[in-house]
Amino acid sequence: MDNAVITAIATPAGVGAIAIIRVSGKGAIELVDKVFISAKNGKTLVAQKGNTIHFGTIVDHNDSLIDEVLVSLFRAPHSYTGEDSAEISCHGSSYIQQQILQRFIEVGARMAQPGEYTLRAFLNGKLDLSQAEAVADLIASDSEANHRLALNQLKGNLSNEIHQLREKLLNFVSLLELELDFGEEDVEFAERSLLRNLMLEIAAYAKSLTESFSLGNAIKKGIPVAIAGKPNAGKSTLLNTLLKEERAIVSEIAGTTRDSIEDLIVINGIGFRLIDTAGIRESQDTIETMGIERSFQKMEGASVIIALLDLTANAQDEVDFLNEIVNRFGLNGKTILALLNKADKASSTIVEQLIAKQIKTAIQVITISAKDGSNLNELHTALTNVVMDTTKLHGDVLVSNARHFEALNQVKIGIERALAGLSNNLPNDLLSQDIREVLHYLGTITGEITNDEVLGNIFSKFCIGK
Amino acid sequence: MDNAVITAIATPAGVGAIAIIRVSGKGAIELVDKVFISAKNGKTLVAQKGNTIHFGTIVDHNDSLIDEVLVSLFRAPHSYTGEDSAEISCHGSSYIQQQILQRFIEVGARMAQPGEYTLRAFLNGKLDLSQAEAVADLIASDSEANHRLALNQLKGNLSNEIHQLREKLLNFVSLLELELDFGEEDVEFAERSLLRNLMLEIAAYAKSLTESFSLGNAIKKGIPVAIAGKPNAGKSTLLNTLLKEERAIVSEIAGTTRDSIEDLIVINGIGFRLIDTAGIRESQDTIETMGIERSFQKMEGASVIIALLDLTANAQDEVDFLNEIVNRFGLNGKTILALLNKADKASSTIVEQLIAKQIKTAIQVITISAKDGSNLNELHTALTNVVMDTTKLHGDVLVSNARHFEALNQVKIGIERALAGLSNNLPNDLLSQDIREVLHYLGTITGEITNDEVLGNIFSKFCIGK
Repeated sequence: MDNAVITAIATPAGVGAIAIIRVSGKGAIELVDKVFISAKNGKTLVAQKGNTIHFGTIVDHNDSLIDEVLVSLFRAPHSYTGEDSAEISCHGSSYIQQQILQRFIEVGARMAQPGEYTLRAFLNGKLDLSQAEAVADLIASDSEANHRLALNQLKGNLSNEIHQLREKLLNFVSLLELELDFGEEDVEFAERSLLRNLMLEIAAYAKSLTESFSLGNAIKKGIPVAIAGKPNAGKSTLLNTLLKEERAIVSEIAGTTRDSIEDLIVINGIGFRLIDTAGIRESQDTIETMGIERSFQKMEGASVIIALLDLTANAQDEVDFLNEIVNRFGLNGKTILALLNKADKASSTIVEQLIAKQIKTAIQVITISAKDGSNLNELHTALTNVVMDTTKLHGDVLVSNARHFEALNQVKIGIERALAGLSNNLPNDLLSQDIREVLHYLGTITGEITNDEVLGNIFSKFCIGK
Repeated sequence: MDNAVITAIATPAGVGAIAIIRVSGKGAIELVDKVFISAKNGKTLVAQKGNTIHFGTIVDHNDSLIDEVLVSLFRAPHSYTGEDSAEISCHGSSYIQQQILQRFIEVGARMAQPGEYTLRAFLNGKLDLSQAEAVADLIASDSEANHRLALNQLKGNLSNEIHQLREKLLNFVSLLELELDFGEEDVEFAERSLLRNLMLEIAAYAKSLTESFSLGNAIKKGIPVAIAGKPNAGKSTLLNTLLKEERAIVSEIAGTTRDSIEDLIVINGIGFRLIDTAGIRESQDTIETMGIERSFQKMEGASVIIALLDLTANAQDEVDFLNEIVNRFGLNGKTILALLNKADKASSTIVEQLIAKQIKTAIQVITISAKDGSNLNELHTALTNVVMDTTKLHGDVLVSNARHFEALNQVKIGIERALAGLSNNLPNDLLSQDIREVLHYLGTITGEITNDEVLGNIFSKFCIGK
């Protein structure tokens, strides 16, 4: 990290009532003083306390007014970055924002890199690495579930547990290495049974976390739900009904673009990505078998498969179709919902009986009419429960970050090797090496161990101004 | 104005590093306390001073975390609205912004109307009406010139002068009306010659201001510049060269959309709207005379006409074309620039001599090559000078607001009537009525006189959150 004073526009691009320009770094407040004239005669910012707000004007090099502003002052370490910083609240014209930004650059600040504010917060010990990553997730969050996911990570639930386990393990490895100092003497500072128990605990924790990744990642990106059905089962109608309802909800949220909700719906605060298994929705009446085969490929990637059966079609054909899905995917950890459609036109009794008799795995059956929207509530509840049930298994902490997932997998491998070494009475120095590797990977999650490349990679994905 | 606590998102829509949610009104700080938990145990916002910043969390009705935030406190009258208010700086996700906004509404705030913050500032005497209008102009400003125009108005230069003249006139009219009380007695409290001088001063000021409107309005919307030339004179090339240069400048400013710059260029901080006189750019080779006639119609609306002459064409034809423009528009207060194009292919000597001999009005002649961009700087300077020269005539204060322009025209009419009355020894009560009308229109500019309809009309054009 260089020590430059950095500056950036922190609010979204475009015109609003107000905009915020941030300045941070050693000397940031002195720098703002160069371009700020307080409304109170002779008052300077450097003479003011932190966490205070000051009214005045930003002026150009001729002391001409650029804008009337409020300056919020933060003094190290009580700021987001942990450095002296200031936030300038100005009128929200693009022109003014640019002028003030340029003015700061003229008097010695430089443009902040994407994520540089949060990088500095990390380097100054205000956040650990997984918390810093949560900041970006939080800003990108667009549903209750991924908002909560990011918040839990920001609160440090994940890092705290990992940090504690790592500390304990670090203690053990120190004792192991201490034993080495005593060379020939037969001392045992690190009690092996306790070490084994700790490593088993870490292994179990890492396993639970890596298993939570598919859910955590799915929540972040939207739970993938494949809608499967034979042509004319009513897939398009169901999709449209679900999306239409949703549009009304999403459109209330400013700034969400139509693009991103095209096939994303939010039910009870959880995002679901609807996967149309027919490939091309409009041409679902083409060669049937090919279509179904292609559909099966798409279902592979889904967490939930909705098998849409047509109550007005041949009952046995429909149940055969369901059976095929269940046989293929029923034991893969996917949730399968049988949706009996067109209840407005036909009864579901025969199909239900066939399902009870012919489908071995217990699956939930819901009767709906996609056309008139009846009973869609039950579908909503069933989809929500899929997530709720899995969340209960993992508790509050879910891993949603691919970097963490990879590190945890390495932790699992390292622990297995160390446990095997322990069982085989591996010499202390080799055992210690295996454990150090586990410590390394645990440390990369919290950022206790890191390097520039990793940091660069993480923070470059942030927006500028954060 | 109702007394409700109002709330709105004040930063542009969309995702950024941070967003600001405003809350204002009597009880606003108590209201924020209902959903805010300070990072310091037991600390409440109501117990804090104004102009201070507080770190903590916004929680939902279950006390679950919505976001970590900074709350800036402002205490009446030291706030934008003049009321107790708070600004919540949260993570910039649309979801979080919406959640916090909804939370405030749950505990008793209501959504602010567009411009309601500034309306309250006006009603609480923080700004007069013309200053309030300047706030909206300031936010919309996208060039140095209209930024400066809005700032001058915001500083109150216009309102101060109008307010002072109005006070003097009010004084006179009171004296006139006092004379009425003395009925038959022949007293003269209001010295007629001083009253006449004051009215002449107001008339002159109103005239100067109304005359500045076409410039002020043009600066706000971009000075209209018509480019006229016979087919193949190089209009398209010139337009493209000017626009291409400009695109590079404008694209640095975040949030400007391509639409709005289509034909707007900013030179030395002044916006110019380029009017292509050929109607349809691509089909300029159609029936020539018709095209020229249509071009003349378009030139009517321009402040500047660039007559583009082709140095490779017949010199006399080109100068005839220029002469026609000068004859039509030379005395209309428009600036005409003769641009001798294609300097890369031919010399300008003959054309310059013909112009000197045949064109009566002195006009500026610039030789350029639109193709290789040579000498465009001189054109830039000439265009900028048009505005600078006119601005000098009017000083700092330009009227750019149609509402002010209309009021000032009414002032002029009222003053004329009152002056005539004064000359004709009109009875005091009738004279006083005419002057009261002038007072009324002067008062509508500063907002000393106003009504709900006018206010509604002005503030509804603001964005929400301002």
